Amino acid sequence: MSASAAPVIVLVETQLGQNIGMCARAMLNCGLDELRLVRPRDGWPNEAARATAADADIVLEKAQLFDNIDDAIADCQRVYAATARQRNLRIPGLDLRDAVTEIVEITPPPKTAILFGPEASGLDNETLSRADRLVHFATNPEFASLNLAQAVLLFGWEWRQSSSLESEPIAAANLPAPREEANAFLSRLEQSLDDSGFFINQDQKPHTIRSLRAFFSSSNASSEELRMLHGVLTALSKKSPVSE
Amino acid sequence: MSASAAPVIVLVETQLGQNIGMCARAMLNCGLDELRLVRPRDGWPNEAARATAADADIVLEKAQLFDNIDDAIADCQRVYAATARQRNLRIPGLDLRDAVTEIVEITPPPKTAILFGPEASGLDNETLSRADRLVHFATNPEFASLNLAQAVLLFGWEWRQSSSLESEPIAAANLPAPREEANAFLSRLEQSLDDSGFFINQDQKPHTIRSLRAFFSSSNASSEELRMLHGVLTALSKKSPVSE
Repeated sequence: MSASAAPVIVLVETQLGQNIGMCARAMLNCGLDELRLVRPRDGWPNEAARATAADADIVLEKAQLFDNIDDAIADCQRVYAATARQRNLRIPGLDLRDAVTEIVEITPPPKTAILFGPEASGLDNETLSRADRLVHFATNPEFASLNLAQAVLLFGWEWRQSSSLESEPIAAANLPAPREEANAFLSRLEQSLDDSGFFINQDQKPHTIRSLRAFFSSSNASSEELRMLHGVLTALSKKSPVSE
Repeated sequence: MSASAAPVIVLVETQLGQNIGMCARAMLNCGLDELRLVRPRDGWPNEAARATAADADIVLEKAQLFDNIDDAIADCQRVYAATARQRNLRIPGLDLRDAVTEIVEITPPPKTAILFGPEASGLDNETLSRADRLVHFATNPEFASLNLAQAVLLFGWEWRQSSSLESEPIAAANLPAPREEANAFLSRLEQSLDDSGFFINQDQKPHTIRSLRAFFSSSNASSEELRMLHGVLTALSKKSPVSE
């Protein structure tokens, strides 16, 4: 079996087509595109699903339809089931993040399915009994319920976070200037302050200069920003045309 | 200031009331309940928001309405902005999970705001320049866009996951001042520069002010540092006794 690393999302007896469409979007947001449907209430294909999925309709086009859960997971080696409540089943429960950690750490990656139940009731015990693990979403216990697409999104998000070890580097918006440029600005600032009579108490001067230096150093100004700060200093150091 | 550990969600110019309602639900799912609204397009209070929020209407009832972003974040010490695109600003970008790690590790916890922009366009540069950090949601680059409530949900989820873990506190060397203090300095600086004839080219003025704002925002000045910077400004704005 050529197992794919990306888990399969299995939606069991989903009631509303638009929720299937929302799930397709959430899946594709996270780079998941293998969707299986078990007895969707409003039939398949479904116009409301397609309308809601919009540009994620490629997920729907590839979706497979099944009559029963066993056929839907026939080729899967690991099966996780999303459940809001603690259940009286012997199947081990895991928090979502721990479940995903488990999924991505198995090598070679087994073909893995995640089951999500109908909107109103969730998965029944009959279906849950097919699972290796029950997955618990650790939301606020006083306001726990997630809608279907949100649960799929959180699963996909956690999967994407855990599996993308080499995440895309985020470019530094602005490279800090070489220190000599920063120091040149600080020296000039110090001189201007000295000229303007800023250091009334000479004993305090070293401490104040250290604080200024720390402030500007830790702000990591770029060369362009230092040019701007030089301009500010020039402008402020001129005799102001309105003040005085 | 008694800073709360739970971040404030700030929705800027949200277009649809129902999206505000969905955000309220996503927030409460994750145990967040402090919502601030800046100029919601369809006014406030909003019936569509209430209908969608359902049992999360307690979040809406406590929500605060603001005319502008500066008032909305006036009491906040750290400001993060959700953005889909890489921006040409100097403000450092972080992946969501790294941003949340940063938020929960600062002890004592600063009052923190997370800004989310309008559905269609996201936050504009003017608003982004108020942020300490841009937060990037590492979704599938080929299908990246999340709806507003999904982005809020992912933020809340990450916050809930991270804050429920025991982490070793990292002391903030220097707690950032509340935004209103930083803004007061920036406004004064801007006025001083105007008075001194700094803005020769008026077309460039908004860009320059944005750059200055971004520089000082991301430098996280403490109250003590802001007092020092005020002193610098006062000294420099006086007629210098030696120059000229």
